[in-house]
Amino acid sequence: MMLSNPAKKYVPFKPFVKDFSERTWPSKTITAPPIWMSTDLRDGNQSLIEPMSVERKLRFFKQLVAIGFKEIEVGFPSASQTDFDFVRTLVEENLIPDDVTIIVLTQARQDLIERTAEAAAGAKTAMIHLYNACAPAFRKIVFNMSKDEVKEVAIQGTRWVKEAMAKYPQTKWRYEYSPEVFSTTEPEFAVEVCNAVSAEWQPTPEDKIVFNLPATIESTSPNMYADQIEWFCKNVKNRDSIIVSVHPHNDRGTAVAAAELSVMAGADRVEGCLFGSGERTGNVDLVTLALNLYTQGIHPGLDFSDIDEVRRTAEYCNQLPVHPRHPYAGDLVFTAFSGSHQDAIKKGFAQQDPDGVWEVPYLPIDPADLGRSYDAVIRVNSQSGKGGVSYLLEQEKGLNLPRRLQIEFSRAIQRVTDETGTEVNGNAVYEIFEKEYLKQTSPWKLLKHQINSHPDGADDETFSIEVELENNGTVVKASGKGDGAISAFINALNLPIRFMDYHEHAIGSGEKTLAACYVELRLGDSATGFGVGVHKDIVTASFQAVLSAVNRHIQQGANTSKEENVEAATA
Amino acid sequence: MMLSNPAKKYVPFKPFVKDFSERTWPSKTITAPPIWMSTDLRDGNQSLIEPMSVERKLRFFKQLVAIGFKEIEVGFPSASQTDFDFVRTLVEENLIPDDVTIIVLTQARQDLIERTAEAAAGAKTAMIHLYNACAPAFRKIVFNMSKDEVKEVAIQGTRWVKEAMAKYPQTKWRYEYSPEVFSTTEPEFAVEVCNAVSAEWQPTPEDKIVFNLPATIESTSPNMYADQIEWFCKNVKNRDSIIVSVHPHNDRGTAVAAAELSVMAGADRVEGCLFGSGERTGNVDLVTLALNLYTQGIHPGLDFSDIDEVRRTAEYCNQLPVHPRHPYAGDLVFTAFSGSHQDAIKKGFAQQDPDGVWEVPYLPIDPADLGRSYDAVIRVNSQSGKGGVSYLLEQEKGLNLPRRLQIEFSRAIQRVTDETGTEVNGNAVYEIFEKEYLKQTSPWKLLKHQINSHPDGADDETFSIEVELENNGTVVKASGKGDGAISAFINALNLPIRFMDYHEHAIGSGEKTLAACYVELRLGDSATGFGVGVHKDIVTASFQAVLSAVNRHIQQGANTSKEENVEAATA
Repeated sequence: MMLSNPAKKYVPFKPFVKDFSERTWPSKTITAPPIWMSTDLRDGNQSLIEPMSVERKLRFFKQLVAIGFKEIEVGFPSASQTDFDFVRTLVEENLIPDDVTIIVLTQARQDLIERTAEAAAGAKTAMIHLYNACAPAFRKIVFNMSKDEVKEVAIQGTRWVKEAMAKYPQTKWRYEYSPEVFSTTEPEFAVEVCNAVSAEWQPTPEDKIVFNLPATIESTSPNMYADQIEWFCKNVKNRDSIIVSVHPHNDRGTAVAAAELSVMAGADRVEGCLFGSGERTGNVDLVTLALNLYTQGIHPGLDFSDIDEVRRTAEYCNQLPVHPRHPYAGDLVFTAFSGSHQDAIKKGFAQQDPDGVWEVPYLPIDPADLGRSYDAVIRVNSQSGKGGVSYLLEQEKGLNLPRRLQIEFSRAIQRVTDETGTEVNGNAVYEIFEKEYLKQTSPWKLLKHQINSHPDGADDETFSIEVELENNGTVVKASGKGDGAISAFINALNLPIRFMDYHEHAIGSGEKTLAACYVELRLGDSATGFGVGVHKDIVTASFQAVLSAVNRHIQQGANTSKEENVEAATA
Repeated sequence: MMLSNPAKKYVPFKPFVKDFSERTWPSKTITAPPIWMSTDLRDGNQSLIEPMSVERKLRFFKQLVAIGFKEIEVGFPSASQTDFDFVRTLVEENLIPDDVTIIVLTQARQDLIERTAEAAAGAKTAMIHLYNACAPAFRKIVFNMSKDEVKEVAIQGTRWVKEAMAKYPQTKWRYEYSPEVFSTTEPEFAVEVCNAVSAEWQPTPEDKIVFNLPATIESTSPNMYADQIEWFCKNVKNRDSIIVSVHPHNDRGTAVAAAELSVMAGADRVEGCLFGSGERTGNVDLVTLALNLYTQGIHPGLDFSDIDEVRRTAEYCNQLPVHPRHPYAGDLVFTAFSGSHQDAIKKGFAQQDPDGVWEVPYLPIDPADLGRSYDAVIRVNSQSGKGGVSYLLEQEKGLNLPRRLQIEFSRAIQRVTDETGTEVNGNAVYEIFEKEYLKQTSPWKLLKHQINSHPDGADDETFSIEVELENNGTVVKASGKGDGAISAFINALNLPIRFMDYHEHAIGSGEKTLAACYVELRLGDSATGFGVGVHKDIVTASFQAVLSAVNRHIQQGANTSKEENVEAATA
């Protein structure tokens, strides 16, 4: 096979804005954050193999509010009963803070618009978001409509929106219109449609309309998108009554750049998802955009000071991972592997003025600002060939360490090499691993436990546990409840544990199968740390892993300034 | 916690090229591919938790050659014995095609340079790549050197390179110099250093020098990097004797854009890694860059017509995943979830002229060009709430399907709903799964097997297998060898199997533990397809999974035009 000649099949994107030499964006810099709009619960949710349940949607919504989003698209209520119910829950249970606007998406059909208004009615402030596709390929292939017909859909839809909103005067209504597939729509036509919508809606500088200009499929390099945005801003009527919004997708891997350049080009608002979730290659990543601003000294107005927690919420709700090399949030982005990088970073930390400008080499941001830490990986493996740490543990002991634990464990190895001044040989690796993780029974040790599913009857989905532990030699009995055995166990412990991550796998097969369990958690306000349990019983392994992590935190806390917190935690 | 005020800690990047109003790149378009340089075996390899063994390096090198790379950075031989041995293997075993140049990286120290030349000596064409850090922060924090001292390092290094090359006249030597951390170096100083190197090296239009200008840490928006590159191209001496190369990293998530805009700005060459591997957030992704060109009708000169195979090689060698939303290559990028997208795509395929311009909505590239297919996911789950397919199989049967299998299985569900015209209820899902995957015993059925590790003595690392199968009711005995039980089994089958992916996990715990195994493979030139096995023995489960996949391929082949191939495959 060979990649075929693309010359006839694919034509270069023709910049509709030809020779746009009056562009000014390449000389601009961004000096303030745009308005952020999260569409995680809409674009993000529609593209999941398993869409979020109401419980997951609620958890994600609360996370978005905690981050500081003031505009949150919450669903497509006229197309999905789950979305409708979710929006009603938000409204009726008073879960929307006063300064947060919820946005509900709809197509331009009267019945759908009415249902959409019904879903959001009662919210303090709600925005109806209407879209119709304007690009030539969609007019021709999907709808078989003329330009005038497409424009009329937008105008008529706007009228219906006004009528539907009028039925619920207790809500402050706002309006967003998207000429869908803007990025491949003739800019003159996009402006024409938006001007017509504007004439119908009559926005004012005090009560602006949002025109959102999606790169529904990213089909151009980001500079061309910026040209389109600048041209739109210069040619649309009533610019001072309009919030110009962009909505980049990432098909060409340049969504972040497209958003940044289009904000330089005049856009006021950016729609996207955390960590670039969304259909196909995803929507633009709002975390990266916000933190790119932060590293330029501009506060984005969003809080990512505990980025691991945000990431965990997103991974739980989306059931999709954040890549280890994802900017700011990936497992490996604050990890230095090469000796020269480690050396430069070490020197940088030593010379860093705590009140001065950040200038540690290779680290574009202080990991501590995000609640993370810098890791240096010791290359035992480069000296010992096949005797690499993970390789050894996997091949010889069947242990398949999660990535962050591999990094954490390499520090334990380093402590030993620093102490002994010698290299660690293959056999020593497992001994260090055992000592560091598997034989952690102080202060807490598991004695026995009894688990009861459905403790209060067959319909009850909780688990209860009775557990007997040793704490510094004293036998302690405890009990707890939870959604599962682990959460019941953690509740029984009654320690300030924040459970971060969990992996479990089988070792071997048949009669001798063991379960290995890896748990990552925080204790109090400690950094995250791992515990490991190995046992023939899968549940016992996981309890041991939790106690291993707790014990390691307590021991490390005793050696650091966090002593007070951890003492409190175990009291 | 709250993200702290960054105003004092982080200062905005100051464009060294101030008010560069003569920039021309924003009006340029790319009309031909740049020279590609893969640094997967260097930058990619240095940033892995487990660096590649020589075996993995060889496999990756062969893959890069097969893709069509003509410039491949193969290592840092003076810093690593593994790298030195690997480069010697390439040279001595004649593994470098005549039209491929290998590149070897070195710091500017005489002993290291000599060792580097020694490593590559004997190759037909080899390039020594010298670097030293020129940026102010590195001069101050890491080296404590003046500008003149830094420049002298580059000049003296170049002299040593010439001397070292002169010892091995049988090799055609080329030279690459990187003013490291170019992106935060004063452009005037970078040009000054490069001019000095040029004066020492004396390049000609026939025998050009490569000046590589790394964004070692991405610290600016991509337009500023493009400004820097255009300014460099306009101000460096002897431009016609110079290949200007860029080397973007992805700390701000804009490496692809930085590469594209800098090629518009005059760069001739791009260094990067497949799928954006590399330290921290990675180097620029060459796959995305190449296929972005392809969708503009420009052949990139690289072959990604079997992108799954390329991805598999990278994942195997790097031991890191490609993200499901990674442009062009991710599991989910050709999958449509929403009904309106599916509808538009269906209409697009129906109207697509096979010889015409590609214009299927939502698909920026024909998946078939990359050896992939378009998937539409049926939302059983959206109708049935918690009865979603994966949710049901996981909660009720303990089966944790890999992502691509979830998508594949949703098509089996769809076939049933299409046939019966009714919705699938929860109970039916597992029955369909059993029928589709677990009860696939025709034509091939496993009877028994015997595995022998170390068949030829204790030092032998191969496995051998004796297996008894039924083929359409006839008992067949076969034997084979391999690196492990599965590969021995596949060799024993003697079918044209290409093994793509493998997952295995435990179901339950204790005495009743079962193993579930998922195998993805091709048979002949079929598309990839899955098989599943569940058994109390982990090995039996995996053999059953292989046969399940093979049987499904054969049955599907019998219903399609691929009949001949699959018949041949089973003959």
